[in-house]
Formats: sequence, structure tokens, C-alpha cells
Amino acid sequence: MIDKDKIAASNAETEANLRADYDALGEHLSRRGIDIGKIKDKVAGYGVAVPSWGVGTGGTRFARFPGAGEPRNVFDKLDDCGVIHQLTGATPSVSLHIPWDNADPADLLAKAEETGLTFDAMNSNTFQDHADHPLSYKFGSLSHTDAAVRQQAVDHNVEVIELGRKIGSKAITVWIGDGSNFPGQTNFTRQFERYLEAAKSIYAALPDDWRLFTEHKMYEPAFYSTVVQDWGTNYMIAQELGDKAYCLVDLGHHAPNVNIEMIVARLIQFGKLGGFHFNDSKYGDDDLDTGSIDPYRLFLVFNELVAAEGVKGFDPAHMLDQSHNVTDPIESLMVSAMEVQRAYAQALLVDRATLEGFQQDNDALMATTTLKRAFRTDVEPILAMARLEKGAAVDPVSAYRASAYRAKVAGERPEVTSGGGGIV
Amino acid sequence: MIDKDKIAASNAETEANLRADYDALGEHLSRRGIDIGKIKDKVAGYGVAVPSWGVGTGGTRFARFPGAGEPRNVFDKLDDCGVIHQLTGATPSVSLHIPWDNADPADLLAKAEETGLTFDAMNSNTFQDHADHPLSYKFGSLSHTDAAVRQQAVDHNVEVIELGRKIGSKAITVWIGDGSNFPGQTNFTRQFERYLEAAKSIYAALPDDWRLFTEHKMYEPAFYSTVVQDWGTNYMIAQELGDKAYCLVDLGHHAPNVNIEMIVARLIQFGKLGGFHFNDSKYGDDDLDTGSIDPYRLFLVFNELVAAEGVKGFDPAHMLDQSHNVTDPIESLMVSAMEVQRAYAQALLVDRATLEGFQQDNDALMATTTLKRAFRTDVEPILAMARLEKGAAVDPVSAYRASAYRAKVAGERPEVTSGGGGIV
Amino acid sequence: MIDKDKIAASNAETEANLRADYDALGEHLSRRGIDIGKIKDKVAGYGVAVPSWGVGTGGTRFARFPGAGEPRNVFDKLDDCGVIHQLTGATPSVSLHIPWDNADPADLLAKAEETGLTFDAMNSNTFQDHADHPLSYKFGSLSHTDAAVRQQAVDHNVEVIELGRKIGSKAITVWIGDGSNFPGQTNFTRQFERYLEAAKSIYAALPDDWRLFTEHKMYEPAFYSTVVQDWGTNYMIAQELGDKAYCLVDLGHHAPNVNIEMIVARLIQFGKLGGFHFNDSKYGDDDLDTGSIDPYRLFLVFNELVAAEGVKGFDPAHMLDQSHNVTDPIESLMVSAMEVQRAYAQALLVDRATLEGFQQDNDALMATTTLKRAFRTDVEPILAMARLEKGAAVDPVSAYRASAYRAKVAGERPEVTSGGGGIV
Amino acid sequence: MIDKDKIAASNAETEANLRADYDALGEHLSRRGIDIGKIKDKVAGYGVAVPSWGVGTGGTRFARFPGAGEPRNVFDKLDDCGVIHQLTGATPSVSLHIPWDNADPADLLAKAEETGLTFDAMNSNTFQDHADHPLSYKFGSLSHTDAAVRQQAVDHNVEVIELGRKIGSKAITVWIGDGSNFPGQTNFTRQFERYLEAAKSIYAALPDDWRLFTEHKMYEPAFYSTVVQDWGTNYMIAQELGDKAYCLVDLGHHAPNVNIEMIVARLIQFGKLGGFHFNDSKYGDDDLDTGSIDPYRLFLVFNELVAAEGVKGFDPAHMLDQSHNVTDPIESLMVSAMEVQRAYAQALLVDRATLEGFQQDNDALMATTTLKRAFRTDVEPILAMARLEKGAAVDPVSAYRASAYRAKVAGERPEVTSGGGGIV
Repeated sequence: MIDKDKIAASNAETEANLRADYDALGEHLSRRGIDIGKIKDKVAGYGVAVPSWGVGTGGTRFARFPGAGEPRNVFDKLDDCGVIHQLTGATPSVSLHIPWDNADPADLLAKAEETGLTFDAMNSNTFQDHADHPLSYKFGSLSHTDAAVRQQAVDHNVEVIELGRKIGSKAITVWIGDGSNFPGQTNFTRQFERYLEAAKSIYAALPDDWRLFTEHKMYEPAFYSTVVQDWGTNYMIAQELGDKAYCLVDLGHHAPNVNIEMIVARLIQFGKLGGFHFNDSKYGDDDLDTGSIDPYRLFLVFNELVAAEGVKGFDPAHMLDQSHNVTDPIESLMVSAMEVQRAYAQALLVDRATLEGFQQDNDALMATTTLKRAFRTDVEPILAMARLEKGAAVDPVSAYRASAYRAKVAGERPEVTSGGGGIV
Repeated sequence: MIDKDKIAASNAETEANLRADYDALGEHLSRRGIDIGKIKDKVAGYGVAVPSWGVGTGGTRFARFPGAGEPRNVFDKLDDCGVIHQLTGATPSVSLHIPWDNADPADLLAKAEETGLTFDAMNSNTFQDHADHPLSYKFGSLSHTDAAVRQQAVDHNVEVIELGRKIGSKAITVWIGDGSNFPGQTNFTRQFERYLEAAKSIYAALPDDWRLFTEHKMYEPAFYSTVVQDWGTNYMIAQELGDKAYCLVDLGHHAPNVNIEMIVARLIQFGKLGGFHFNDSKYGDDDLDTGSIDPYRLFLVFNELVAAEGVKGFDPAHMLDQSHNVTDPIESLMVSAMEVQRAYAQALLVDRATLEGFQQDNDALMATTTLKRAFRTDVEPILAMARLEKGAAVDPVSAYRASAYRAKVAGERPEVTSGGGGIV
Repeated sequence: MIDKDKIAASNAETEANLRADYDALGEHLSRRGIDIGKIKDKVAGYGVAVPSWGVGTGGTRFARFPGAGEPRNVFDKLDDCGVIHQLTGATPSVSLHIPWDNADPADLLAKAEETGLTFDAMNSNTFQDHADHPLSYKFGSLSHTDAAVRQQAVDHNVEVIELGRKIGSKAITVWIGDGSNFPGQTNFTRQFERYLEAAKSIYAALPDDWRLFTEHKMYEPAFYSTVVQDWGTNYMIAQELGDKAYCLVDLGHHAPNVNIEMIVARLIQFGKLGGFHFNDSKYGDDDLDTGSIDPYRLFLVFNELVAAEGVKGFDPAHMLDQSHNVTDPIESLMVSAMEVQRAYAQALLVDRATLEGFQQDNDALMATTTLKRAFRTDVEPILAMARLEKGAAVDPVSAYRASAYRAKVAGERPEVTSGGGGIV
Repeated sequence: MIDKDKIAASNAETEANLRADYDALGEHLSRRGIDIGKIKDKVAGYGVAVPSWGVGTGGTRFARFPGAGEPRNVFDKLDDCGVIHQLTGATPSVSLHIPWDNADPADLLAKAEETGLTFDAMNSNTFQDHADHPLSYKFGSLSHTDAAVRQQAVDHNVEVIELGRKIGSKAITVWIGDGSNFPGQTNFTRQFERYLEAAKSIYAALPDDWRLFTEHKMYEPAFYSTVVQDWGTNYMIAQELGDKAYCLVDLGHHAPNVNIEMIVARLIQFGKLGGFHFNDSKYGDDDLDTGSIDPYRLFLVFNELVAAEGVKGFDPAHMLDQSHNVTDPIESLMVSAMEVQRAYAQALLVDRATLEGFQQDNDALMATTTLKRAFRTDVEPILAMARLEKGAAVDPVSAYRASAYRAKVAGERPEVTSGGGGIV
């Protein structure tokens, strides 16, 4: 972890400027009838989960270019996640991926306590073969034509739930790559029937206070059809499985041009929004840093979430899910967590009563201007003040770089050579 | 209508060649274990509805360039539709659009008898203002914020049902343009609640033996959000309304790259496929001629439909829905009807037992080759023979051109001047 | 025009708050080493042209829903444009479209003087038939197979240049809808050869101090192929024509997901960026209000423009080109002009020396953070102060609504009934 | 290689049926004025190159699932490629990828002679790090900010040319992954300037009778911007480099909905079409089997190529470039080579004089019907007869499966375990 004194020293340098900005913003907001303190408190209470796999350098099918100090195992990953939370105060929990993060539950809990973290939704993996799974997922997992492969995949999910139960998780996210690469390769209907049957077996193993999140994705790794290809199919699944089944929305898993915030609204309306995998994309499932490509879209998603606050049973999980190919993953995750907070803070500034009036009157121009006014407010002082007050860093990236954490772990963790992706 | 003797004379010229091609194909297919006569009979029994509005020249928001002999009213349109069916034998019914086609039911029935046609699904129109509707649909219809506008739109739909009932239709297709052009212009959830409430009122007016088709569309005329934007929302609607509510799939109403045949399969599986608006597209809702851009996609849709034949309650409506901007609409509709038949015939040739085996064995290459083998079979002799045997034209376009029908109606119907589209 | 005293009165109400916000921002920016006054001066000197056709309510091929007080002719349009400039101080010029805006040059100049406006690039129109053009553009204009149609289209462009010359314009924008709706309808190569030959004839008629802008568009009104379909073809054209030929970029005319700011950079690098049609889009050529869907993309475009300031010969034309279907066009154009100014102001705040250092060091995270820092700065006080100081309105929409201008012209201009679009 | 007697025996079984089909088709075509023998001869003379890397199982960033008998090195790959050519008679050459296929030129030539193959275009690789390259390509290669990295990449390309020269290749294909993942990460203009400078250095090393192919791609592995992102930039490069520089078109490297056949026509018109990487795609750069998703699009591309036959200097390279994730790569490459032949044969059937007449007359319907008539002709007997006559297999997949080649090499080549892709 980072030396607290160093963080404090770093904060001390910028505190005066921050207070000036914060006060000016507070005055401005008070003229708009908004209490900056209340916004700050909500932001301070907000957290987004970090994916354990996000702290390693990502890659493409063409290549992977690791950085220094790549985490070797789940404990290294938790160390890195701990730093992210320490500096941002915004990422109190970690989402594990099994088998990548398999470990003794007691050791996981101990490490979590050490790093000040808890465990968010568990993730199973049947899109890769496992060393200890005799059967291959080359042609599918939960929807495979062979019942034995389906059973193997179900068993794995049940084990993941079991591990999660022991470490305090309350949900499992099931994403599979099942689909096809050729017209005719699979029978869409039979395949989905098999999927549903297998998913019901997993659902049956769910503890009472758990939720099951299924995640749709348009394509990749399957390139002609994907079993859970969009929110329509995802919604069907959640309906078929039962009250503990919800739909997870990954911002990068949709067809070009799709209005994602509208899908979010539909799932909220019908009580089936389970949560998010936040990231950003320009082309496909690019897994770029959240808010890096289209920050207004992120705001529009949060506009729906803030509008739904207080709806009975509305409690979506928030998680980052990104691939960091050209940045230090710790830095990207810190910045992304703050971008999520930023969108949340901006959405909190929307004058909803006024907006509703414009909507009722079909005053499209003033309605959209009402959203834009909230979006263009620079809420950075609010985020920074929330961090300052909880002992995190006013400027997490600067503090992180100053800490030389990366150099330290690079010395402890063996170098990883660059490697090819799937194509070699 | 076209002189039957002329058709016969035209057919006589090509009959010998057709029989040669048909016999050669018959022999080839018999080696593949297929009885060409059975395929021909199924093709002969197949029909697709023609949209009344399709016989007029279409346009874009930029311009409309009418052709000669534009139909002036529903009776002219039925004349044109009659010619299409006479020459192709493939389009026994017509789908009307109200108020465009409003007329006395008795007159409609008389004209239908005269032209040998029946009436397919009725279409209501609340995406344009009506001369006799006091309120505007500028800001929506079934989902408008003003209850009076919603009621006006509901009433119109009920009237359309009533007219349809009198002329023997058994279904109504509800497509609306409601949506928004700006983030924030509408509240997605409130808007959809209003839509559902209004749609239930229409559903309540449905005769027992009728079906209600709702149609999704990604965008246009609304450019930021659309109430019924995709099959997921469409499916929700069909579920909310009841057993007589079904989803209509227009091939051009999806996001780029979407796997439409898979959506078709999902809706069949869950008993909610109502039917089709056939057309083709390269970019958006281009409304190009069916099969003109991606004939293999059309085949893959029919592959799902043929696979579902015999499923209890499976009875989708088939309709063309195209905009003919640069061709004679009669010619385009004839060719498109034959393209639909072609895809149907090709799909009938798929060796389904063999395909199933390859699917079960994950033999992707042979599975897809099985589809391709059916697709690449040139079934033109089957289609032409079916036409010949029912007294239609072996080559409908040639027979139509030889008939000088267009010149005849051009003399009877006043010339229409080119006009601007929506932008001027 | 709007009563100046009313504007002043309206400004007086908000001036104190504006000064507070402006001063706070000034202090903040000075801590970042930026002189707010210099930014304000650049913003104050910036102008974007308004399209004459933009002040009328737009429509789609499905319908057009006019508002009250639709302009009847170019003089009404200039009145409306004058109001936009009066209130925003940001739109000093108007772009005319011929034949829609055809009028006596002396009358146009007189009206321009009265409204305080000048004339930007002229627009020709060969995507619609003209009452006084004997030949139709149904199958193309500059690339038509018939030489007589091509000549007619060339002649029209030459006349537009002639009119423009008389009213002080210095450029013509040539956008055509030529293309095809079916594979095989046209020979791509022959069609482009014909286009180039005709374009050269127009180019030959260009006065020495004029520029010719050609504009690419992926599709619509042609739906299978378009002659000038992308910037690649557009660049070829500019190369073939000569030094006075440049490429115009309309933000809504690209394929899904395309990186437009990169195209802008390429055209700048090779000396062929002519200018912009600003608008925004989510799906196709939606012609939504500039910055309404993806304001960060607009900023990234301006980031390229600001980076290129000072490059020899770099002088792109800036114009709005939008369709206002659900708003008061005057309001939309005012807000859009301010959004363009906003993006410009934000781009001016980018610390380019620092950015260059991060780029050189491949510090992707800090490079993108440098852009984001500029983007998220709320520059509204700068824009508003620039308006205040030049006698425009601090809040143009409020001032406009308070002025009752729309009600006034609604009384003077006859009501227009809603109409169908191209499909009926 | 496969036992020739087995191929002959397999052919003997189907020869009679083939001759029946061929004769029937011949009669049919003669009625259309086409000599089937001439078409067959052109098809027989046509060849498409196989990519050496295509014979190994591909993968995604999520996983790779190898099959049995994965080739261990370039010599195993050439054995597999030899089988493909032996059975199809359609793939006389192989395209190597360096360093993957690095070997002694004499050994490569010997193996080529043994397998009956020649060497097509060489491919360099600077999208992955090389064991013997001291500098990393993580942040680019030919466009890297560091001159030393650029030089290293240039040197590699020169070495690839040198190796290619020794083995009889006449071209190098340069595809790089350079780009960025974040707005601001790179300066588009500086990056392209660096690219052009480096590319000129490679060009300078080109033997007189060689060609340099540059290949554009919209995205991946870079996800915000790519240096050679589209054909516009690719064309600029070919112009800047000189007469031996040409553009390579990979069918899967374009934005959604783009009209690729039109790009092909443009590059032909301006003398810069270098060749193709054939494959198919539904979403992104899926690298699916050629013609498996949209066979009509493939036909439309070949329609342009056949139309350009005989144009001076027109000699595009044809190569498959696919990723085989769920099939036996040998089978996929055989089927894909035949799909390319099929599209070529269909394009040869287009009645071009008639087509030109319809185009001239703007008879869109008959023009597109002319293309469709050629496309829907089942040319399989022509392809099969060409194979039979040259001693290849009438049914290559059946013959291959009967040969048990895969089992044989599986016994000789060690098993490869499934592996993760770039994300772990």
C-alpha cells in the first residue's frame, strides 16, 4: 500500500486550490438551488467494484504487451486493487474470476481485510478450457450439444457460487462465449433450450440472498451468432429463471448505434436490471477506459440510474470491466472509477422537477438543455473534496506516480515477456 | 388486367426451354433424394401480401420522382396489385393503410373480387397528421404526454379494425413513429407506460379471431430514441397485451450487423412471431427490393421459417414493405415476390435430417455447407413452372412490359409532378 | 428584430451572477496558466454560418410537422437568421440554397444589410427537380448517363456561382444525391468519370478568389451506392479538380463508428479541408442539433482545428446544417451555434505543449486526461461574457422567448398544414 | 500428400453424376449464349494464395482451442497447403508471415517444390514483439515516436523482402497495428508523417519487379484510432510512395455497411488496387470463411474484377486471410478457395453488353436482374469439372476426410493444449 503520509503531503500541496474551486462551485450551485455538500456526500458514499483481471495488462488476439510488475496471482491483484481504493476511495470491492483467482477462501478473506476490500460478484469462466476440466468448451459450454460438457460447466458455476459464499459475495455473473461461427452450425432454438436448462441448474444452486446476473454480448468470441446476443434474450433468461435472476449490461456489448440508456430504462421498468460492466468503446467490445470515448453516454446512463433511485428493489451492481493494453492498469482503473463517480455526480445535478415539466410540455430544447447543464458542470472539485475528506488522494494518479508503487512491485514480481494473442 | 392470351403467347415462347431446365433440375434433385414436384407444389401454394402503398413511387425526405400512371386512390392501387398477382400468381392479398386507403367497404370488396385479391393485415397511421384529426402527432401518438392525443390515436386504430373486419382482414399492424430527437426530451419509462396503456385499449377492441402485430424499428422518424426500438421491447409489448398480440419483424428495422434470423428463431420459440415486412437494406431502413442486397440473409430467415413449419400455432403473416424510388413499382413488387418464393424454395431444399446430424456433431463446416448447397441450387425452373401451371407468366417482367399496362394507365391517370421531400 | 432594450433588461438580471462565475473561472484558469480574457476574445471573434433552410421546420420521408410562423421565402429566412445572430452574436453569415432562395441580388444585399448579415457559401441543388429545368434528376445529375442532364446540372451550378458572386459569397458547396439503389444499376467507374467531367466544368466557372467544396455522404437519398460516398472519393475529387477544390465534412455523413476527427486531421495534413457542416447524429444522417448526442466528439474535431490554427492556407468554412423537426428552429440554431463555440473554447484550453510531451512519451493516460481536463471545464461564463460584451443576450433562448418573436411572425406568415413526406 | 489413387477412386464414384449436371448446365448456358467450356477453362486457370498461418487453428483474445495435428513450423504448414492445392487445384501459392515462417530459403524452396507450391506475397510482422528485436512495438512500429523503433521495424521489412526475393516472391504486404486507444494518445498528423517516412524507406528497398501492398483496417488491435484506417489513407500512402505501391483490400477491415465493391472500383479506376485478403465477416474483422456470411457481396466484388480484366496494369493479388476457430483449417481453406472460384465463375456469366445497355437506359430493375441471373446460376458443375480434369478431387472435403490426413499428422505432430488469448 501507499504511505499515508505521502498521500497527505501530496494533498497538502493542492488543498488550497481545491478549496477555492470547491467554494466557487458551491456558490454557483447554491444559485441553482443545489447544496454542494449533499452532492459530495452522495459521491463519497458511492463505490464501483474493480475486476481482479483488470489489474493485469490486457491484450488482443494479435498480441499482449505486458508492463512491469504484472500481478502473478489473486493476492498480487488484491494488492493492486487495494492501492486503487486507497487512492480513490471509490472502489471498495473486487470481483473475482474463477479459475483465474482460485485460492483458499480463508486466504482470500485475510488478504481482503489487509487491503481493506470486500468481494463483489463472482465470475465463472467457461469460455476457456480448464486444466482440470476433462472436456473442452471449444464448441460451447452451457449450451453445448453434449450433456456432459453442459454438466461440467454447471458444476463449475456451482463451485464458483460455493467459493463466493465463503468469501461474502452475494452474486454470480455468468457470461459465456457460446454461439457459432457459421450459418447452420447450430440450431438457434435447441441451443437456447439447452442453455436455459443449464442456467436453471445453476440458479437452483443459488443461496437465498444471492442474485444471478446474466450478461449479453452481440459477438466475440463467436462471430456469426451468440446465444445471449442482446438484452431481449437476456430478459427472456431472467424471466425464465426467476426472481433472483437479473440482466447485466456491459456498455460495450451492443450493436453499433444502439441506445443503451434506453435499454437500461426498460430493464429498470420491468425489474430486471442487475448491474453494469462499465467501460467504453468506439467500434466493438473495445473494453476501453470508462468515459474515455463518449462521456455524455455514460452520463445518460447515470441519468437513468439516479432517476430510478428509491424504486423498490432497485439495487444494481456497479463494476468496471476493461482491458488496459497501453496504460498502467492501476492508473486506468483509478481514472475510470473517478469517471463513473463524475457521471454520477453530474446526474445528481439534474433538476428533475424542471425536466419533468419540459417533458410534459414537449419542450425538447429545454429538456435536453436541462441535462446538458448538469453534464457540463465541472464537478471535479466535488469528487476531489470527497477524496480529500476520506483520506484518499486529491490527485490519485500523481500520488500513485510519486509513490513509485509500480517500480516496487516490478522488483518483486518477475518480468513477463510479450506474447502473441490467439492468432499464433 | 393483362390479356390472358398475351400471357399465354408469351409463355409459349419459353415453355420448351423451361421444361428442359425443369427436367434437368428434377433429375439433379432426385439424385439428392428430393421430389421436385413436391417442392413446386409448396411454392405454388405460397403467397406474400402486397402493400397497397407499394404500387406508388416512393421517395426520400429529399425528393420524390413519380413515374407515369401513379395510382390516384385505393382502387387504382388494387388494379395494380391485381396485375402483380395475375402475372406472378404469388401475391393473393393486399395490405391496406388507413387513412390513405379509406373507402366504402362494399366498394373495396367489389374491387377485390374484380381483381382476384383478398385483404391482408390492416395498417393504421398515427405518424402523420390527418385532415380530420384535430390534434397533431408531432410529439407522438399512442405514447403522447397528452391523454387526448392518445385517445385520438386509439380511436383511429379501432376504426381501422372496424373497417378491416368488414372487408375480411384478420389482423392489424401497429407501427408508430413515437420517440424523441434529444436526450431528455422524453422520460423513457413514462412514455412506454403510456404506450402500453394505449395499446391495451386497441387490443381490447380486437375481434376474437384477429391478431395484433406490433412492429419495432431502431430509428426514423425519431432520431434519438424510439418507443418500440427493438425486438426486446416488441416482445415485452406482446407479453403485456396477451395471446392475440404478436411481434412483426421488418427486415430493415434493426441495428447494423444484427443477426435477424436469430431474432426470428427466438420469437418463434416463445410463440410471438407475428409475421414479416420483407424488404432489403444496406444502410438503414432503405426499403430496397427484397433480396436485392443480401439474398443469403433472406434465405437464412426462410430457413428458420421452414424449420418451424408444423409448430403448433405457428402462422406468420408475410408481406412486402418496400419503397420503389427508381423502378416501376409493379415490376419491383413482382420481382420481390418471386425473390421471397425463391428463398422459400431454397429453404425447402435443405436436408434437415443431415443438418441436424452435423449440428449435433459440431461439424460446422458440413452444417454450413448443407445450407449453402440448398441456397446455391438455381430454383428458378421450379418457380417458373409453378407460374406456368397456374396461368401466370413464366417471365412476369417481360409479359408486363409487353402488355403496355403502364402506358395504358398513364393515359388514364393524371401526371404527378416531382416534389420535394420533408426538407423543403 | 428583437428590441435591444429588452435584451439589455434581460441581461441585467443575470449579469451579477455571470460576473461571479466568470471571475471564479478566471481565477481557476489563471492557476492553470490560462488568461481567460484571451480565450473570451477568441470566442467573441468566432462565427459559424447559418443555413437558410435551417430556419424552417424540417421533416422526414414520413411526415413534416410545421410550427407557427414558418418563413415563406428567403427574406423571412433572413429575418429569422438576423434574430439568431442578434441574440447570440455568433452567426454573422448565412448560407443560401438555390433555387429555394432565388431572388434579386440587390434585394438580397439590402436584406442582408438590414439584418446585419453576410453571405457564406452558396449551395446548388440537383437532388430535386426544378420547375424550370426540363430534365429530371431522378437518375442522377452531374453523373447522369445523359449528357443533357449533366449539362443542365452544370449550368445550374454556374448560375449559382454567378448569383453568389453578386452577393459577396466566396464559395459554392456541391452536394449531389447521385448514386444507385441496386447492385448493377450503375457502372461505378463510368459514373464517377462522368461526375469528374461535370465537376471540372463547374470548377472552370469559379472566380479566382472562390473555393469549391464537395461534400461526401455515405448514403441517402441513394441506398446502395453513392458517387461521393466517403472522404476517400471526396479527396480524389479535390485532387482532380485543382487548388481551389476542397473537401467539406458533414459530421453526420459517415459510416457507423468512423473516427471523424482523424479524417479531419488527414484532410488538413494534405491541404484539402474545406470546411464543415456541423450537426449531430446517433444513427444515420439524423441532422440533429450540433453537440446534442456526442459533445465530446465535437470537441475532438475542434481539438484538431485549434491544433491546425496558423497552418498556411488553413481556413475552413464553418456552417451548421441541421433539420429541426421538434423544436423552434431559431432556438435550435442559437443553441447549436453556442455548442460550436463551446467546443472551440474548450479546445482552446488544451495545454498543447504538455499534450505533446505526453504523446512523445506514449503516456496515453495523461495525454487523454489533458484533453479531458479541457473538455470538462465549464466554459459557459466565457461564452456568456462574450455575448454580454457585444450586446447579444446572456441567455439567448430566454431572451428569445421573452421577445415573443415567434408569435409576432406567426401573425404575419400564413399557417402551413402538416404534410406527408416522400412516402405518400 | 494424399494418395492420388484414392482421389481418383473417390472421383470415379461421382463422375457420372457430375457429367450429367455439367452437360445440363452446358445446355442451359448455351441457350444463354455462353460456352461452358470457356468458363471452365478460366476457372481452371484461376488460383488464390493460401496464408501459411491459416492452416493452424485460430483464436480470439478469449481463448484458442487447437485441433489435432497443428502444424509446428513452416514446413508442416507447407505440407498442409500442399494438400489443399492437391485436392482443389485452386491454391498454387502460399503467403508467408515472418518471423513466424522464418527458415533457410533453400529449405523453403525445396519444400515448395516437394509440395507443388510457389510463394506469393511476403508478410512482415511488427504488431508483435520479436524475441530478437530489442525494442517493443507496444506503442507502434513504423509510426512510433522513437526513431529507433521505426528503424527496427523498417529493417525487419527489408529483411522480409530479402527473404522473399530469394524464394521467388514478388511482393510484400505491410499491415501494422499502429494507432491509439485514447483520444489524444497520438497526434494523428505527426504519426502519419512518421509512418510515411518509414514506409518510404521500405519502398526504397523494393526490387524493381516487386510491388508493395499496404493494407488498411478500421480498428483492432488499436481501438480508438488506426494509422491506416481506411482506403482513403491507404490511397494517400500508395500515391506518396510511388508506382510500385498499391492498396490491399481485406474484406473484413471496413466500417459497418460500407460498400466494398465500390472501393474496389475506385482503386481500379485510379490504378492502385493491389489485391485482396479474402474472408467474410458479420460484425468486425471476424475472419470467417470467405463467402460464408454474404456470398452475394463476394460476387459483387468479383463482378468488378471481371469487368476490369484486360485493363492495362491490372493484376491484383488474390489471397485468403481467415481465422479458423471451429473447423479443420484445411477444410475451411479448401471450401473458401472454391467459394472464391465460384464467385469468379458467376461473375464470368454476367452478360456485360446487356448490362451496359440497361445501365445506360437507367433500367435499374433489369440491370440488377442481369447480375442476379448470373449469381443464381449453380456453377458447381463447372468448378467440379475443372477439378476433375486437373486430377484434383471432385469433392475435396470428402476426399480429404477419406484420406485420414488429419489423423496421420496428428500422430506426427505433438498435441497442443488449449490456451488463453490476450486477456489472461
